[in-house]
Amino acid sequence: MSRHFESKVEAIEVKEKSISQLLAEMSKTAYQGRKLGETVNVWEAMLKEKELTIIMGLAGSMSTAGQWTIINWLIKNRFIDALVSTGANVSEDIVDAMGFGYWQGSPHVNDTELVKADINRYYDVYGKESDYRKMEELMTEFMLTLKSDFAYSSIELLYLFGKWLGAKGIQSITAVAAENNVPIFCPAISDSAYGESFLMAKNLGHNILLDQVKEFYQFVSIGEKAKDIGVVYIGGGVPKDFTQLIAISVSPKTMDRGVPGREGFLRQSVKEYYYPHKYAIQITTDSPQWGGLSGCTLEEAISWGKIHSKGKRVTCYCDATIALPLIAHALNEKVKFKRTTPDLTWLFKEVS
Amino acid sequence: MSRHFESKVEAIEVKEKSISQLLAEMSKTAYQGRKLGETVNVWEAMLKEKELTIIMGLAGSMSTAGQWTIINWLIKNRFIDALVSTGANVSEDIVDAMGFGYWQGSPHVNDTELVKADINRYYDVYGKESDYRKMEELMTEFMLTLKSDFAYSSIELLYLFGKWLGAKGIQSITAVAAENNVPIFCPAISDSAYGESFLMAKNLGHNILLDQVKEFYQFVSIGEKAKDIGVVYIGGGVPKDFTQLIAISVSPKTMDRGVPGREGFLRQSVKEYYYPHKYAIQITTDSPQWGGLSGCTLEEAISWGKIHSKGKRVTCYCDATIALPLIAHALNEKVKFKRTTPDLTWLFKEVS
Amino acid sequence: MSRHFESKVEAIEVKEKSISQLLAEMSKTAYQGRKLGETVNVWEAMLKEKELTIIMGLAGSMSTAGQWTIINWLIKNRFIDALVSTGANVSEDIVDAMGFGYWQGSPHVNDTELVKADINRYYDVYGKESDYRKMEELMTEFMLTLKSDFAYSSIELLYLFGKWLGAKGIQSITAVAAENNVPIFCPAISDSAYGESFLMAKNLGHNILLDQVKEFYQFVSIGEKAKDIGVVYIGGGVPKDFTQLIAISVSPKTMDRGVPGREGFLRQSVKEYYYPHKYAIQITTDSPQWGGLSGCTLEEAISWGKIHSKGKRVTCYCDATIALPLIAHALNEKVKFKRTTPDLTWLFKEVS
Amino acid sequence: MSRHFESKVEAIEVKEKSISQLLAEMSKTAYQGRKLGETVNVWEAMLKEKELTIIMGLAGSMSTAGQWTIINWLIKNRFIDALVSTGANVSEDIVDAMGFGYWQGSPHVNDTELVKADINRYYDVYGKESDYRKMEELMTEFMLTLKSDFAYSSIELLYLFGKWLGAKGIQSITAVAAENNVPIFCPAISDSAYGESFLMAKNLGHNILLDQVKEFYQFVSIGEKAKDIGVVYIGGGVPKDFTQLIAISVSPKTMDRGVPGREGFLRQSVKEYYYPHKYAIQITTDSPQWGGLSGCTLEEAISWGKIHSKGKRVTCYCDATIALPLIAHALNEKVKFKRTTPDLTWLFKEVS
Repeated sequence: MSRHFESKVEAIEVKEKSISQLLAEMSKTAYQGRKLGETVNVWEAMLKEKELTIIMGLAGSMSTAGQWTIINWLIKNRFIDALVSTGANVSEDIVDAMGFGYWQGSPHVNDTELVKADINRYYDVYGKESDYRKMEELMTEFMLTLKSDFAYSSIELLYLFGKWLGAKGIQSITAVAAENNVPIFCPAISDSAYGESFLMAKNLGHNILLDQVKEFYQFVSIGEKAKDIGVVYIGGGVPKDFTQLIAISVSPKTMDRGVPGREGFLRQSVKEYYYPHKYAIQITTDSPQWGGLSGCTLEEAISWGKIHSKGKRVTCYCDATIALPLIAHALNEKVKFKRTTPDLTWLFKEVS
Repeated sequence: MSRHFESKVEAIEVKEKSISQLLAEMSKTAYQGRKLGETVNVWEAMLKEKELTIIMGLAGSMSTAGQWTIINWLIKNRFIDALVSTGANVSEDIVDAMGFGYWQGSPHVNDTELVKADINRYYDVYGKESDYRKMEELMTEFMLTLKSDFAYSSIELLYLFGKWLGAKGIQSITAVAAENNVPIFCPAISDSAYGESFLMAKNLGHNILLDQVKEFYQFVSIGEKAKDIGVVYIGGGVPKDFTQLIAISVSPKTMDRGVPGREGFLRQSVKEYYYPHKYAIQITTDSPQWGGLSGCTLEEAISWGKIHSKGKRVTCYCDATIALPLIAHALNEKVKFKRTTPDLTWLFKEVS
Repeated sequence: MSRHFESKVEAIEVKEKSISQLLAEMSKTAYQGRKLGETVNVWEAMLKEKELTIIMGLAGSMSTAGQWTIINWLIKNRFIDALVSTGANVSEDIVDAMGFGYWQGSPHVNDTELVKADINRYYDVYGKESDYRKMEELMTEFMLTLKSDFAYSSIELLYLFGKWLGAKGIQSITAVAAENNVPIFCPAISDSAYGESFLMAKNLGHNILLDQVKEFYQFVSIGEKAKDIGVVYIGGGVPKDFTQLIAISVSPKTMDRGVPGREGFLRQSVKEYYYPHKYAIQITTDSPQWGGLSGCTLEEAISWGKIHSKGKRVTCYCDATIALPLIAHALNEKVKFKRTTPDLTWLFKEVS
Repeated sequence: MSRHFESKVEAIEVKEKSISQLLAEMSKTAYQGRKLGETVNVWEAMLKEKELTIIMGLAGSMSTAGQWTIINWLIKNRFIDALVSTGANVSEDIVDAMGFGYWQGSPHVNDTELVKADINRYYDVYGKESDYRKMEELMTEFMLTLKSDFAYSSIELLYLFGKWLGAKGIQSITAVAAENNVPIFCPAISDSAYGESFLMAKNLGHNILLDQVKEFYQFVSIGEKAKDIGVVYIGGGVPKDFTQLIAISVSPKTMDRGVPGREGFLRQSVKEYYYPHKYAIQITTDSPQWGGLSGCTLEEAISWGKIHSKGKRVTCYCDATIALPLIAHALNEKVKFKRTTPDLTWLFKEVS
């Protein structure tokens, strides 16, 4: 049973050190401190891979929490190649990018007073309804530039929006992503300010058609062209679930012969090839015992053929407002090489 | 400060009693036991309202956990009028309704062994990949019946699917909902077996167009016709967030004058009327401190104008596999009257 | 791999049924609903055992939450044979048993106002400081009846206190336990009103000596005389950790030969016998991933030799204010037989 | 309502920076990242106070997780003046300090195999039973040096043990604390290897008397001599609850006139002075809604008169294996001054 005694827990000595050094030391400890340290190691390994497509699933409302600039940094440095996001994350950042911003508040507050003062609360963050509305009006202005006889997918719409915002000097996530040819998928896009803007545009007589089937087809097509896939989940929800589907979906399945050049996993009962993700990082505050996707272990995804049992994977149970800044700064210190990034510009060709 | 001493905690005496009696007694205690008891009281109050539209947001994967028959029961009794669901909840039930089913397993298992045996794990539930595939094939068969030149919304697609399944004697949630004229919204529908079936249909040369803008417009139109709205959230995620938007969305806002016959809340800075939900029940295993929507308090929604500060509301932090069966059985014991239900059949008219 | 398909998930049909029937049906579902149902099955199996000592570890502050009468009921029916408790649970009940009680409050409150009004808050429960003080004064009155030249253990002190309270007609947990010869261990007793009362007595010139070594020795002696042990943990903390130690402690270990009549487990490296618990039920709101004892799986305890791998065990992640009333009422419906209870009166002999 | 817009959320720009700079930036964000940043600010403010006694409550099993050296560093630098600990934290460190150590393992493991291999699992940490036993034997050797006719308190026993270990060159927490005159309180000390050693000593004919009343009196006496108190809670449990009692306990209460030189808070109904803690830091993975002490807000403690409403306080919901190393390293970078520390050596005088 000597295999149980391979790696010692090393107690931490406090002294001057860099962020990446401390996280490396934490990876030699236990519980979630260990896991946080390991996320940096796994992400670094991903970046060193020759042909890997890195997809980030970004849940929740991280942009109001001062995290959207970190997403921008990850995109600019191409530490991610594609983003699957909630509508919140790629709309609430715009309020800040427009110069309005958010305020630190208390969660112990009288919300009836807040609503009378036109303040929207996100736990301990306050935002002005009037600022939010200005963002929606800007968004609606963009919607009016869209063709009404064209079936858009969310990535096309967000690419065009990013270009449009970038031209105005608004450096939102969509703008930076468009500039860097990083596609953004937003499977439940109407569940956000985007939904409101669709309605506002409609009230102005402008109908937009947003096709979910097209979006899904475009997403899984990434899988057909990729050699290997690595995923980074900030929270769970739809972004995680949707991202996982790329491992098991699309035409090769029906063709019963797999994607040329990709080493798949043949599921016996259905005689089809799956392409489990090779790397997976998951930051979550949910827990496995509730049976849901947001908190489940990455091991559970192995049973589904969505993650490779021999790949590198790590789950860290921690608020992303703690984990994400630390991981990003550690990567910034450690990763000095330039990785080869996959070209996903073909996703934009219909709207370019 | 005598207002602090209005309602005594009453310690529970163990003796023979009904489920609803025990829950009533629990509502006199504390912590989440109290809250579970209160959910029954709030739901009962909703059912007694003359003109109330009750919308349920159903997150997660509850159908694999033996809960889908409870949703069917709620629909048949019209204890809910509309359902906003994940794709998982209205597809994985079909596997069971087809007669295949799921098995009780252990979460402490070697998932590599499971994938080799073609078993998909949902925490402590095992499902056969081959059964799942048969459900997807049935679904794909349905997809081929759809018109390829028509922009469907998720509720239209699910209504037609429900009718189609019902005709085959498969009593899934969609079938029972269609039979009872209860619309089902599924904002991220491709993030499930539905997405797979869209692809399978496409691989067979059949293109489906699914329009998210239409879906959102249909959803918020319910708000325009409703007098008051009550919500029941089983979990958070997109179903909750999407449902909340009905309180603050659509044309009346732009018209700056409110919906005739509805008492709205005028947000000062934007001079528009909002229609906060009058009743809200939330069952969740998430927590507020992570800043996300799934765990946030209903008080936070007050600041957004999404919930009425004077309405009845209750959050119970508990696994829904515990809370939902208990609440349903307590309602079954207590509610003997017939409520007046809103007519939402206009939502199906384009596809009927 | 047919062993994975032994027990089907059975979806719940809503109709009139008893509490125990519903819980039995929940045990056929998944996630924590399943686990809640299983707790009843495991407890029932414990009660059917011929020679089993059942120890409950009771953490937190359950008495302010209306749960103390359930503990009394469990004691009276001898569904437990010994109790390991926090000081809070066996002191805050006295406030209620004295007729003062607690009030239902809100956790969203200005605590500065509360302290000015002399109200102590326990999440959503309010208690009057003046009532708490009357309980402490009663407790201090009892302390003055103790001998000052005698080294008491917590169980001896609580036994005498229970007798003293019972004589006054105050039916607290200690009183009911003393009446039913159920010992109460309270390893951190000074961390409660008891600590305050020790000081009050000391201020009145009365010194009490409370010996932790004696208490621990008495506790592990139960193990020497028991044939088998079953445990029920309501929460974790010291009550759980302390209770676990009975599995691995005391003289037989040093004697290297085991307890006559008990089937032990010989730990190889140390050549000593351990007596893992045969049954274990755990209700907790904590989670495993934080590495602590309160949330860890019962499997972890197997590695320690504290729980038998072949015994029946179940963990249910749920607020005890939900789980405990349900389990108690289900047991009340199901258990009609009289079990044989172990005699633990020898623990009181020094003070009787 | 401009008071709601005082402090802006500042989105983080990724670039080279020190640990303390990053945490300072995180304190300008939201959710728990903000809170983690704030803990450093509050602790720094504590250290700058002229006459403050800083007490740390240390729950759980942090020593097996590589954190005990951080506690030693905090003691050596006198960033804490007294420690209230579980028995686990001040015993499991000794295994490592003796040179045996722990190993990184997996929580997804067959525990039955582990127990057969004499491996104890602490979530993802493995320890050898034989090493643990050697620590217990060393501890027992020390126990035999104690007087059998003397009533020890836990702090006296741990002080002597620390001296004894230090003389052997074993730099455990107890040794470093003894060397630096930092008292360690351990209210449930028998609930750990200490309990086992008491029994082993007893089996060798050596009785030890450990008096909980003496321990509690010594602890609250710190309050009588302190001007102000600041607390740092790593986890909750008994260490937190016990530490809180210093705010409301001891003779001054009974004297009805307060401690000379201390500004107290007069509770009206009982006409006694309380001394709420001026500063409080809490790191916890528990949540408020379960009603327990480990997860409750520091606001709840205000209602009890245990924390000052105007003092600085911060709760960060995060695994301590993440938070503690980060906070310690940030303090190491920022705190270059020498603080005035209170003299608590009078606590050791009976055993010196």
